[in-house]
Amino acid sequence: MEDSAMTEDRADSGALTLGEVAERVGGRVVGDPDVRVGSIGPVDETDGDGLAFLGSRRYTQYVGESKAGAFLVADDLDEMLPEDANRVVVSEAYPAMRTLLQHFHPERPCRPGVHPTAVLGPGVELGVDVVVGPFAVLEESVSVGDRSRIGAHSVLGRGSVVGRDARLYPHVVLYEETVLGDRVTIHSGARLGTDGFGYTVVDGEHAKIPQVGRCVVGDDVEIGANSTLDRGSLGDTRIGSGSKLDNLVQIAHNVRVGARSLLAAMVGIAGSTRLGEGVFMGGQSGAINAIEIGDGAKVAVRSCVIGDLEAGGTYSGTPARPHWDTLKAWGLIDRLPELSRRVKRLERAVEGLENG
Amino acid sequence: MEDSAMTEDRADSGALTLGEVAERVGGRVVGDPDVRVGSIGPVDETDGDGLAFLGSRRYTQYVGESKAGAFLVADDLDEMLPEDANRVVVSEAYPAMRTLLQHFHPERPCRPGVHPTAVLGPGVELGVDVVVGPFAVLEESVSVGDRSRIGAHSVLGRGSVVGRDARLYPHVVLYEETVLGDRVTIHSGARLGTDGFGYTVVDGEHAKIPQVGRCVVGDDVEIGANSTLDRGSLGDTRIGSGSKLDNLVQIAHNVRVGARSLLAAMVGIAGSTRLGEGVFMGGQSGAINAIEIGDGAKVAVRSCVIGDLEAGGTYSGTPARPHWDTLKAWGLIDRLPELSRRVKRLERAVEGLENG
Amino acid sequence: MEDSAMTEDRADSGALTLGEVAERVGGRVVGDPDVRVGSIGPVDETDGDGLAFLGSRRYTQYVGESKAGAFLVADDLDEMLPEDANRVVVSEAYPAMRTLLQHFHPERPCRPGVHPTAVLGPGVELGVDVVVGPFAVLEESVSVGDRSRIGAHSVLGRGSVVGRDARLYPHVVLYEETVLGDRVTIHSGARLGTDGFGYTVVDGEHAKIPQVGRCVVGDDVEIGANSTLDRGSLGDTRIGSGSKLDNLVQIAHNVRVGARSLLAAMVGIAGSTRLGEGVFMGGQSGAINAIEIGDGAKVAVRSCVIGDLEAGGTYSGTPARPHWDTLKAWGLIDRLPELSRRVKRLERAVEGLENG
Repeated sequence: MEDSAMTEDRADSGALTLGEVAERVGGRVVGDPDVRVGSIGPVDETDGDGLAFLGSRRYTQYVGESKAGAFLVADDLDEMLPEDANRVVVSEAYPAMRTLLQHFHPERPCRPGVHPTAVLGPGVELGVDVVVGPFAVLEESVSVGDRSRIGAHSVLGRGSVVGRDARLYPHVVLYEETVLGDRVTIHSGARLGTDGFGYTVVDGEHAKIPQVGRCVVGDDVEIGANSTLDRGSLGDTRIGSGSKLDNLVQIAHNVRVGARSLLAAMVGIAGSTRLGEGVFMGGQSGAINAIEIGDGAKVAVRSCVIGDLEAGGTYSGTPARPHWDTLKAWGLIDRLPELSRRVKRLERAVEGLENG
Repeated sequence: MEDSAMTEDRADSGALTLGEVAERVGGRVVGDPDVRVGSIGPVDETDGDGLAFLGSRRYTQYVGESKAGAFLVADDLDEMLPEDANRVVVSEAYPAMRTLLQHFHPERPCRPGVHPTAVLGPGVELGVDVVVGPFAVLEESVSVGDRSRIGAHSVLGRGSVVGRDARLYPHVVLYEETVLGDRVTIHSGARLGTDGFGYTVVDGEHAKIPQVGRCVVGDDVEIGANSTLDRGSLGDTRIGSGSKLDNLVQIAHNVRVGARSLLAAMVGIAGSTRLGEGVFMGGQSGAINAIEIGDGAKVAVRSCVIGDLEAGGTYSGTPARPHWDTLKAWGLIDRLPELSRRVKRLERAVEGLENG
Repeated sequence: MEDSAMTEDRADSGALTLGEVAERVGGRVVGDPDVRVGSIGPVDETDGDGLAFLGSRRYTQYVGESKAGAFLVADDLDEMLPEDANRVVVSEAYPAMRTLLQHFHPERPCRPGVHPTAVLGPGVELGVDVVVGPFAVLEESVSVGDRSRIGAHSVLGRGSVVGRDARLYPHVVLYEETVLGDRVTIHSGARLGTDGFGYTVVDGEHAKIPQVGRCVVGDDVEIGANSTLDRGSLGDTRIGSGSKLDNLVQIAHNVRVGARSLLAAMVGIAGSTRLGEGVFMGGQSGAINAIEIGDGAKVAVRSCVIGDLEAGGTYSGTPARPHWDTLKAWGLIDRLPELSRRVKRLERAVEGLENG
């Protein structure tokens, strides 16, 4: 068995002194720069030679009991640590944490090759150092770029294209002619290029409209587990480069998502709607069909967008409105019992006045 | 490898003159009937010998820049085209588009046969010209009707039945004893006949109630990618003939969906609820358990139904109410700040009158 | 083919007299204790020697037409049956039904063994009587406890651990280092240990933060079809023992769900949020990130929790508030048209008073 052809994972890596940590993350040491740390973890679960990460005010409550040997702390939280705690202070905590995670958990090397159980159709083209896992099926004329890894059981439909340095986890399905860019990551169970929900009534029955467009995904896109992205009906469905979709997201036919957008879990975008660049959609939010959401717009969790949204705004509620209007409406709904009582009192007062 | 046993796809087909187009779709030619078109596409992406489809007012903005050789246009949008544009005019645009898509993108022929890697249990019965893809598993006593296609990696549990001319895309799972009618289409990752969420408390713990009913799907049903349909607990879960379910739809145990209903993406129907015939549920909408939704009722996107709905009505909101009431309530919520100010003014006026 | 290695199912079992039924479920017979029943079913679908189950008032409408030979009925519904109906009366209907379902539908015995098509990496450890289905992939150093069954096509990532008597249905994926307790059930298409949605901005792009925590699931947990449970980013994501998750549930990174909680279909819990023990979340409800929901709290269907919730309360709405407050607000919104009219009348009256 080609174990290398199955999944990658992260191996433990070497310890660092706080001095070395500070150098890697562009921070400064407070305390002993020669203290060694062998891992990084949350402030409430780290001890021994672990470096406790303190990047958000919410976790400062755990600092008192922490048994960590040292801390990685954001500038503005530094005062929450005991004065004698050994630490590295940084201006931006999350990029620093990311750098250290990449050090302590490097990707395991992965032996290239096609697992002997994989099924490859005629005309399949594989770049150099491609990995194809057990039971993967690459249909006729599929193309996979250099160093890309196709997980176990994945099915790449006829004529689909995967760029370079992509990673498909086990159980991904690409319907025919789906196109993925470079450095794309697709998690287990995602289905790309599925048929859109398109019917027209013929003789009183719902008759299916053939869905003949493609699903085209740019570079550096990540798509979460069990998400579904329909192919276009006539034109294509497109996800712009650098965009990230969380788990269980639904993208209908002919949707366009611009570059660098973030769609949190369970977001649903209906047919032909267009999202600009750098759009953020919170968890369980959605948008109806055939509308436009401008560049940089932010849609709060659980909101439902039913009309065009201007660029740069923050929106919430169902129907989604400017966030401030939604908050005001929620506040007034909370005060409805009081408003109702005030009207009642007014009615009595007016009756009194009328009756003299 | 039996490529034929993997997926079907659509081949390009022959060009048509506008005269031939008009004949096929029951339309009339305006302009030159001998112009030839080789494909059909969206008005903003079609050029050369493409036939640009104009079926909705929203796309008339692209007409001016279109480089298409000819147009397929709905009657009521015809005036939006330049007078000299060669075109076929039809009364119903979408059925016409469907007819042409079927011409330009016919289904590829698909060689029947069982892929050598498939695993078939004892007593499996296959009709004529069945296709079974790589790594499919058909357990004991499964039956598949004539010309049906079972996609790669699909698992058909013990005793499950698939009708004729059905198509299961890769990665479908049918739990044991699931029943599918004729001409059913199931997309990748759909799970049918899964256990319902049924527990009762025994000794202070949630104890599972065995789920022994079936999931029974009628003829001409289509079910979207990654949808989940539970089996019944005691009786069956049933999806009526001609109904279409989009991606990521959840149908709980003992739900009954009548014929010709449409459930858009991410709809969730809770246990034992019954939908009539021709019901429409918009995206991300839902219904609580043990209620009835009448024939032909329409439930708007993102609504939550918490009580019986009468046949034929249109409903929206959470909780779902007649759509007009919801619109009225939304309008009044929008005007709450104003109402609040009016009450304030009244209070001052009444105070003035009382003191005055 | 090792059919035994595929799925389990339930065989029919022997008939019982009403006397034997009463003994098994701790009930009392009314009528003839020697009547024999061979199955149990819903009151509107049972006839012949079937025992009709009547556990909820909703089904009493079907009693008149029932052709069942006998009834299993809850104490408080007994008066709804004809006086001469043979029946077993119990104080708690659902545990009784469960006992009888276990009798009439015992689990089929399942021959242990590893299907010859399964792929096992180096260092895999299997307990006694383990079942591994066709095309399953167990990567390096995976461990599976005694009598556990791994369904067809499931992929267990490097170093993942499955306890004893667990059941993974076909098409489950565990990412590396996922840990499952004893007697866990995972339905088809569930993905555990997937990467959380964690990015930080580096050079203007969304840069992925390595997700290095685990997904750790306690004993007696059941997880529904196509649900997704992310691994932790730094620490672990944890599901407490005895908790049950329905289909299409999303659990983000570092979420903690306490013991014996119930999450209905399509629930989404955002990152780092903590649910106490015995929490109930209704279908399509959700919770934002980094909040706490107290022990025993109940969240109604479709609610969205945006702040900490106290233990034991019942909450509903978006944003979720105490259920009584939500009902009151909904009632007042319903009466907004009337309130608006009353304010209008007051304005006229006051104008009248002011004018004299």
